[in-house]
Amino acid sequence: MTGWLSIAGLGPGAETLVTPEVSAALNEASDLVGYGPYLARIRGRSDQMVHASDNRQELERARHALKLAAEGRRVIVVSSGDPGVFAMAAAVFEVLDAGPADWRALDIRVLPGITAMLAAAARAGAPLGHDFCAINLSDNLKPWAVLERRLRLALQADFAIALYNPRSVARPDGFARALSVMRGACGHNRPIVFARAVSTPEESLSVVPLGEAVPAMADMRTLVILGSSRTRVIPRDAGAFVYTPRSADA
Amino acid sequence: MTGWLSIAGLGPGAETLVTPEVSAALNEASDLVGYGPYLARIRGRSDQMVHASDNRQELERARHALKLAAEGRRVIVVSSGDPGVFAMAAAVFEVLDAGPADWRALDIRVLPGITAMLAAAARAGAPLGHDFCAINLSDNLKPWAVLERRLRLALQADFAIALYNPRSVARPDGFARALSVMRGACGHNRPIVFARAVSTPEESLSVVPLGEAVPAMADMRTLVILGSSRTRVIPRDAGAFVYTPRSADA
Repeated sequence: MTGWLSIAGLGPGAETLVTPEVSAALNEASDLVGYGPYLARIRGRSDQMVHASDNRQELERARHALKLAAEGRRVIVVSSGDPGVFAMAAAVFEVLDAGPADWRALDIRVLPGITAMLAAAARAGAPLGHDFCAINLSDNLKPWAVLERRLRLALQADFAIALYNPRSVARPDGFARALSVMRGACGHNRPIVFARAVSTPEESLSVVPLGEAVPAMADMRTLVILGSSRTRVIPRDAGAFVYTPRSADA
Repeated sequence: MTGWLSIAGLGPGAETLVTPEVSAALNEASDLVGYGPYLARIRGRSDQMVHASDNRQELERARHALKLAAEGRRVIVVSSGDPGVFAMAAAVFEVLDAGPADWRALDIRVLPGITAMLAAAARAGAPLGHDFCAINLSDNLKPWAVLERRLRLALQADFAIALYNPRSVARPDGFARALSVMRGACGHNRPIVFARAVSTPEESLSVVPLGEAVPAMADMRTLVILGSSRTRVIPRDAGAFVYTPRSADA
């Protein structure tokens, strides 16, 4: 039997947000590869090999998965959210690009998933209803100067801005600097959404004016969305909705 | 029985990309509201009311759906892709914002879906593996000057850029102008992906250098992704992969 490698997105947490395509692929796999807590979300069968690894070992994990597929195994690499957004798909292609030429003949597929930004936006209303961008605030992978320049240009372009990985114990300061850049560019009244662990039992959501946002509102399980200049808040007893109108003139 | 309104994303086309959450909601609805071709993707039950409308009637459709929910109906508004990305969710909140105060007490939910950009990226490899933005090229909703300025800033910020609704019969010229702006900013070698009708029987994918891109490669069913300065192509017999490395220094 010929091996294959699929890089699959498990969505933000709830099983009801895993696509049937991903569920079918998980069922057909011989080997499940991924970060431990993501693998824990899957009910594997007893005949499936589970290869759990730590966070930040993406390239090693990708190499292991490609080797298994080259040996004829049916391999799934799991990602939270969508595998193509700040997740495992790019790591697999980085390793493929640098790897042996015969790996390129492998059957490699990316199976999309609901990325955190879409799940968070859905809970908040429709903050991404007009043009938007997604920025990974993790500075493990890029210098702060690059990040700050990109953030400033995104603010000038008047995108709604989704911020992934805003803050961790290892990087407590980056998000505070980002908040300061954002306040400098768009004042204190712009709505900002903090959506944590959407679709899991730990879900929480808050919408505040940018002037009231503090770094402690975010951690690594939080997705932050800053509205554009046109984003509006609809107050409600059941929690405000936030949306960005479709039209630039609306 | 209390009414509700859910705005649901059907994903890019294939049934295997519809989330179980959306399938369950479709099953519980009394009324299905949407653009005719999207409703045609659903196998409704005989006891469900179907309210089909034409394209570009988003606000009227949203108003109709809110009225039905206020009358106690269980209403689904369907969108292709994700309802929060250039789709029906923002239209519903625009109408809610301007509508009667008692509509705000309605049970309104947005059910996320696989948006075209994620489906296209998955087929191409991982072009959105680093920071990216999404721009709706439809100038029905914004003047070209706003759009061009945003595109230029996005290019300066070195985002990978997903372009929705690149070209229609009614707007044949905007995409040609966008290609010209993009070539001016990043030359002729930058990879650009044309992904049409991904996950449907009409699916096609092509990856070319920007210098070889011509407007006729896109229509309203095409999602275009321009790589960032770091995006790479992995040539293969089975069709090239395109990916953007996770790291700014990789």
